[in-house]
Amino acid sequence: MILPEPSLRRLPWYLAHVKLLMNSGVEFVSSTQIATATNVDASQVAKDLSLLEISGKTRVGYEVKSLVEVLEDFLGFKKSHKACIFGVGSLGGALLQDSGLEQYGLKVVAGFDIREDIIGKEINGISIYHINDFYKIQEEEQMVIGIITVPVDKAQECADLMVKGGVGAIWNFTPYKIKVDENVVVQETSLYAHLAVMFNRLNEK
Amino acid sequence: MILPEPSLRRLPWYLAHVKLLMNSGVEFVSSTQIATATNVDASQVAKDLSLLEISGKTRVGYEVKSLVEVLEDFLGFKKSHKACIFGVGSLGGALLQDSGLEQYGLKVVAGFDIREDIIGKEINGISIYHINDFYKIQEEEQMVIGIITVPVDKAQECADLMVKGGVGAIWNFTPYKIKVDENVVVQETSLYAHLAVMFNRLNEK
Repeated sequence: MILPEPSLRRLPWYLAHVKLLMNSGVEFVSSTQIATATNVDASQVAKDLSLLEISGKTRVGYEVKSLVEVLEDFLGFKKSHKACIFGVGSLGGALLQDSGLEQYGLKVVAGFDIREDIIGKEINGISIYHINDFYKIQEEEQMVIGIITVPVDKAQECADLMVKGGVGAIWNFTPYKIKVDENVVVQETSLYAHLAVMFNRLNEK
Repeated sequence: MILPEPSLRRLPWYLAHVKLLMNSGVEFVSSTQIATATNVDASQVAKDLSLLEISGKTRVGYEVKSLVEVLEDFLGFKKSHKACIFGVGSLGGALLQDSGLEQYGLKVVAGFDIREDIIGKEINGISIYHINDFYKIQEEEQMVIGIITVPVDKAQECADLMVKGGVGAIWNFTPYKIKVDENVVVQETSLYAHLAVMFNRLNEK
């Protein structure tokens, strides 16, 4: 089921809240409680949760433990998606060190770069290879997600290489708008665009 | 001028493209060229650029060098905004190592945590302090932006502390929906929400 992006972005908020409840031993939660905690309209929460295969009980609401499981499963966090990172510079190297991603279903298994001084090394137990070795590694690893953290002028080239190698989704951290075949999923996360929005709002106060 | 978020998110794409042109020695660029390169509608590009204090010349278009300067200035990337990071775990530690942020106007000057083993240490030349020392450091540094990368159950507490200390904007990397006074700017960047969207699209193919 292809979900609307706004719902998909709200579900992790609910999950974060419900996980907290679970860890404090709470057994049931109502959509109204979730709504208050996450600052989302109650009818919207109910609508979002209706997308899941779980139903609340009258008066008591949803069973917290089941809701956590259903949400994690639904969001794909319980499956392990193999990924690689192109560009082991400051941001790429940083993401390699973020072991939090693995808990959310993203397993980075390889890094690629062209800088001789880091090729052959490991970061956080993950090997760094030369970009020229991508196809070879891809044959062994069958990575489904490619993360791009190269300089902007190399972003398109890397995307093309990944797509040729059979990667199904690209997570683009550069501010460059890459173009790929429409059956490839592209997720843009430009931290700099978020900075621009934040600076603008801040300076207008 | 408070700009619509979609425009603010597109401007860094234009900037990335125009910087590439500048570095390859190109002198002029038209809005149509920018539109093609960034995959945005040409009239939309023209409209976005009309927000800036620069005008193109008939036939030749915008002067590339000036456009880069005006965009960087407009987006706040040329000013240095002092920031701190609460939560020096895997993601927080990773962001401390990302020196790219400074080039885009975000200067992280301090990290805060409660783990005794890292307090007093430095990452990338930035000192890590105990969260209890936040007010003291804030008095010296006057940080305007607070970055939150703590576990979700600590996010609200940290936000409250930051706001009390006079931080004007919060960059929240947790999936927890924090609540703050409406004059505080909040920018949400939940990598996990982006993962959820990407996994959903990928699994539906």
